[in-house]
Amino acid sequence: MTETDPTVGIVMGSDSDWPVMQEAASALEVFDLSYEADVVSAHRMPQDMINYGSQAAERGLKVIIAGAGGAAHLPGMLAAVTPLPVIGVPVPLKHLDGMDSLLSIVQMPAGVPVATVAVGAARNAGLLAVRMLAMHNPELRERMVDFQADLRTQAQEKGERLRR
Amino acid sequence: MTETDPTVGIVMGSDSDWPVMQEAASALEVFDLSYEADVVSAHRMPQDMINYGSQAAERGLKVIIAGAGGAAHLPGMLAAVTPLPVIGVPVPLKHLDGMDSLLSIVQMPAGVPVATVAVGAARNAGLLAVRMLAMHNPELRERMVDFQADLRTQAQEKGERLRR
Amino acid sequence: MTETDPTVGIVMGSDSDWPVMQEAASALEVFDLSYEADVVSAHRMPQDMINYGSQAAERGLKVIIAGAGGAAHLPGMLAAVTPLPVIGVPVPLKHLDGMDSLLSIVQMPAGVPVATVAVGAARNAGLLAVRMLAMHNPELRERMVDFQADLRTQAQEKGERLRR
Amino acid sequence: MTETDPTVGIVMGSDSDWPVMQEAASALEVFDLSYEADVVSAHRMPQDMINYGSQAAERGLKVIIAGAGGAAHLPGMLAAVTPLPVIGVPVPLKHLDGMDSLLSIVQMPAGVPVATVAVGAARNAGLLAVRMLAMHNPELRERMVDFQADLRTQAQEKGERLRR
Amino acid sequence: MTETDPTVGIVMGSDSDWPVMQEAASALEVFDLSYEADVVSAHRMPQDMINYGSQAAERGLKVIIAGAGGAAHLPGMLAAVTPLPVIGVPVPLKHLDGMDSLLSIVQMPAGVPVATVAVGAARNAGLLAVRMLAMHNPELRERMVDFQADLRTQAQEKGERLRR
Amino acid sequence: MTETDPTVGIVMGSDSDWPVMQEAASALEVFDLSYEADVVSAHRMPQDMINYGSQAAERGLKVIIAGAGGAAHLPGMLAAVTPLPVIGVPVPLKHLDGMDSLLSIVQMPAGVPVATVAVGAARNAGLLAVRMLAMHNPELRERMVDFQADLRTQAQEKGERLRR
Amino acid sequence: MTETDPTVGIVMGSDSDWPVMQEAASALEVFDLSYEADVVSAHRMPQDMINYGSQAAERGLKVIIAGAGGAAHLPGMLAAVTPLPVIGVPVPLKHLDGMDSLLSIVQMPAGVPVATVAVGAARNAGLLAVRMLAMHNPELRERMVDFQADLRTQAQEKGERLRR
Amino acid sequence: MTETDPTVGIVMGSDSDWPVMQEAASALEVFDLSYEADVVSAHRMPQDMINYGSQAAERGLKVIIAGAGGAAHLPGMLAAVTPLPVIGVPVPLKHLDGMDSLLSIVQMPAGVPVATVAVGAARNAGLLAVRMLAMHNPELRERMVDFQADLRTQAQEKGERLRR
Repeated sequence: MTETDPTVGIVMGSDSDWPVMQEAASALEVFDLSYEADVVSAHRMPQDMINYGSQAAERGLKVIIAGAGGAAHLPGMLAAVTPLPVIGVPVPLKHLDGMDSLLSIVQMPAGVPVATVAVGAARNAGLLAVRMLAMHNPELRERMVDFQADLRTQAQEKGERLRR
Repeated sequence: MTETDPTVGIVMGSDSDWPVMQEAASALEVFDLSYEADVVSAHRMPQDMINYGSQAAERGLKVIIAGAGGAAHLPGMLAAVTPLPVIGVPVPLKHLDGMDSLLSIVQMPAGVPVATVAVGAARNAGLLAVRMLAMHNPELRERMVDFQADLRTQAQEKGERLRR
Repeated sequence: MTETDPTVGIVMGSDSDWPVMQEAASALEVFDLSYEADVVSAHRMPQDMINYGSQAAERGLKVIIAGAGGAAHLPGMLAAVTPLPVIGVPVPLKHLDGMDSLLSIVQMPAGVPVATVAVGAARNAGLLAVRMLAMHNPELRERMVDFQADLRTQAQEKGERLRR
Repeated sequence: MTETDPTVGIVMGSDSDWPVMQEAASALEVFDLSYEADVVSAHRMPQDMINYGSQAAERGLKVIIAGAGGAAHLPGMLAAVTPLPVIGVPVPLKHLDGMDSLLSIVQMPAGVPVATVAVGAARNAGLLAVRMLAMHNPELRERMVDFQADLRTQAQEKGERLRR
Repeated sequence: MTETDPTVGIVMGSDSDWPVMQEAASALEVFDLSYEADVVSAHRMPQDMINYGSQAAERGLKVIIAGAGGAAHLPGMLAAVTPLPVIGVPVPLKHLDGMDSLLSIVQMPAGVPVATVAVGAARNAGLLAVRMLAMHNPELRERMVDFQADLRTQAQEKGERLRR
Repeated sequence: MTETDPTVGIVMGSDSDWPVMQEAASALEVFDLSYEADVVSAHRMPQDMINYGSQAAERGLKVIIAGAGGAAHLPGMLAAVTPLPVIGVPVPLKHLDGMDSLLSIVQMPAGVPVATVAVGAARNAGLLAVRMLAMHNPELRERMVDFQADLRTQAQEKGERLRR
Repeated sequence: MTETDPTVGIVMGSDSDWPVMQEAASALEVFDLSYEADVVSAHRMPQDMINYGSQAAERGLKVIIAGAGGAAHLPGMLAAVTPLPVIGVPVPLKHLDGMDSLLSIVQMPAGVPVATVAVGAARNAGLLAVRMLAMHNPELRERMVDFQADLRTQAQEKGERLRR
Repeated sequence: MTETDPTVGIVMGSDSDWPVMQEAASALEVFDLSYEADVVSAHRMPQDMINYGSQAAERGLKVIIAGAGGAAHLPGMLAAVTPLPVIGVPVPLKHLDGMDSLLSIVQMPAGVPVATVAVGAARNAGLLAVRMLAMHNPELRERMVDFQADLRTQAQEKGERLRR
């Protein structure tokens, strides 16, 4: 976790989701963005979850990344109590390969959106948060442009090795 | 709605779910059970929803029937804040034929169960509530036995007409 | 198994389902509830299965928990012959990840409900039985409230460890 | 229905399945085979259903065709109580397009097979019964060979019209 | 393989399907029924496959059991060229868990049925063949009744062990 | 369309997607946010699409909303060439009910996220864009808070009507 | 149909598939390519189907386009008996929305490929045939380039109308 | 890789796809066809990807084989910028078993086809390229005929071993 006031809240229903969700943290660290990570379970601590979401904006968070699996209610419930953008990460569980998690997160009713990423794609959740934060931060946007250029270079190098 | 104190709470995310959910009410009426029906949206009125669930038991409700569609969070969130049994009805929406509603309701994590019925099966939700209420009510159980006998008679009559 | 007259019947199609289904038993033991566990196969001993269901209520059972996989007919067939609430546990088999088990259990026709829980979620089946039994048992309901409070505490502690 | 003792039993959970299931009857009529049609609901008249299956062989039936939808238990339960071959027709219901019916019928456990045909394919169920009856009936087999030749002729004629 | 003229043909697209398909053979052996096993690939030896199917009846086979995976065309193509009943076994491949195999086999067009069993359920394919052969063989039917009674006994014994 | 420089780009593969996508525009209009709407087809005008995405940031756009159906490549391809956040709307086509659109949009590889909303949920795409724009705009965030309060009021009024 | 010797064979299992499949013919006509259309049913005229495929190359056909639905065996069986490329069109039937057709066509075993297009996408099947025929025909390839330029122009014009 | 000018381009989004995609190369080598293999990522190097596709025909390539997984956009995007036939290989990723890859590749809109093969079926992609190249190359077609004859011989030998 970073020392300045966190900009991004990374939350999940259980610490068993952390191996998946820490990739979101890593992505934020690449861009030197501060974050906090916490267990906020929609089903096991519902009122705390409501409080977390309700206070997120005034606490200075700009984006929330929420990971959950199965009947994954955390991202959608947080989106219901905060005006901040909420990014949902469908965590795959033992059965159904994350399809239940994906549908439970993405199929939100009109009025309350969740920005959903791929099954298990916490790294992309982090990168999506960076893009949002870069909307009004030209320097950060420039770093995202560089990041994308690096992805290109890495892919090109892989191609070179394959062509040899 | 019935005049005595309601025993069953029938709630849904929007009044557009009522055409599906009123079948739950009809089933309860067959058994002269009192109920209340209300709109309690997990995403549009989250704190009210938490309050509804938290107070349900002390208000005298014995069972909650919750219908929701898409990323259907209402049944699971209510189950998180009440010790009462919660019956979830997956309401089919315009796309995906209720599969998203079903998985969002049934795939609850360990600790917080939702008693899920078939897609759109609000009548069965009502009948399941009756069975629960009949657990310690011999007379009501007897009526359920009679109800099942009636189902048999009706099916037999259909057979007779078909055999003719 | 407990010594007093069992309140809950836990049945399954084969003893190979026991590793999944014993979680239902464990959940009941947490609440000091008595249960019986048995193999009652819809397809291998159909008449015994009918008899089991038909006599369950008069034998003093209050709830039946039935686990089955694939073309899972046990929960629905028991629900057809008893007025008691039947909780169905979709047991995942080698193929299709429990989706066949889930649909075979939850998609019951109007008139005969099965209270379905998540794929493999026998623990939640047990907890759902507790909630049903607590409907008319204030002390048991209080214990469920405490149980839910414990879930909250555990989740909070996980959060603390993660925040460190 | 035919006047001689019926050879094939066509059963379904409700007379609402008859519009689908009568295609099985039509197929049998093409081959002048006798049948009976009846409503035998696994969930609404379980003991009658068990009796129907148990007595089918001694009553002289050679094959049972059973149609059912949703959590479709009728074909599998009949197969559990008769040594006759049981043909299952997955009847599509309002939701899920028959996928629940298909999986509930075809995914039977080891020991008790159901000969499953396509969703809504009652005509093929009838033709499958004919093939079974023709196994030891050279004349009937010859008629099936002729029937297949007719299918070829019709397909060829369709081709001719298309080529014009 | 048995010494008398085979009654059942067990065919598959590749010998890699044999570990699945030999369960069909084992089931037939339980009932002392003769069979032949062969590789008959719809896609690698199409004309031989047509020939196999076309000659099956005159060669004295009474039933064909065909296993195939993925775009599984073998059962349906054999059914197109023989008047015998064809039993299809959906063999699960590396991806999609047998769902492609199942749909490719069961969803046959009107006119040409395949008696489909569960994914990987070759044993049930064998038992279904036995039921068909028993239609006009009272002794064999009696053995199937005994077999079903044995299934019951085994299930009861499992229950006894569980109850201890 | 609005008169000031557009802040949000709403693009789609064909004008046949406009009936779905205009809900995104309506949502932006509720918040007096400027947008542009255009047809930018990944498959029919790939280089123009690349150019659109590459120039979006320097043209002053802050967010892109992209709707597409079937093998829906537009949102992901735009995300590959812009550092801006891209919101993807899975447009349902004639077959498969939008499941292909959803998976084609949401399952992006690590490095290039798309913020995916529900099948056909263009209104939520617009509201998600508002949330993103409100991250550094306290007044806009306040309006989102008010908007959410209005959702609550409307839901409560529906409840009142239902309770009557 | 065109007057010169046909270059492309368009075949389908039944003339009921023609409303879908004629889009393949229209696409070929755009490029002045000759074709023949015929009913060649894998299940109703298997030997004719084998003959059609076996003789296609020597008859001068260069590509075969085969449409089929449900357990769609026609494209794969033709691919088994011809060295020509076979393009498969999954025709959607009444149930399952073409998913069965798609999997039955695309999931071919190693050794025998079918070039599969989208559900119901006969027009694309025609265009794919054009691309194949253009591989060694510079003029035809140029026309495909022009065709793609036209697609771009049409999309741009749609954008213009939308921007107004 | 082969020494003459390559005829087939085999491209993939990452070198992690090579273990799957090299089977396409092996298939081409069986027929002594030249190819090139490269990493061309739609999402990480979009402009290079557009360039690769745009120049493929003038560089002398006749067919492109493109493998991709998840939201697999590479085959479709290449097809958008080249008049050559593009063969798409759905590469299965960690979740969803390749179903997302398959739908993202095959469900292309009218105008831009991708010749899709089975999940993970790179070998068949190579063989499909051979069939396309053989359309105007009688010798190569003869070799494909021989190849198919070899498949038959191998299958027959497997049958012989099984029959022993």
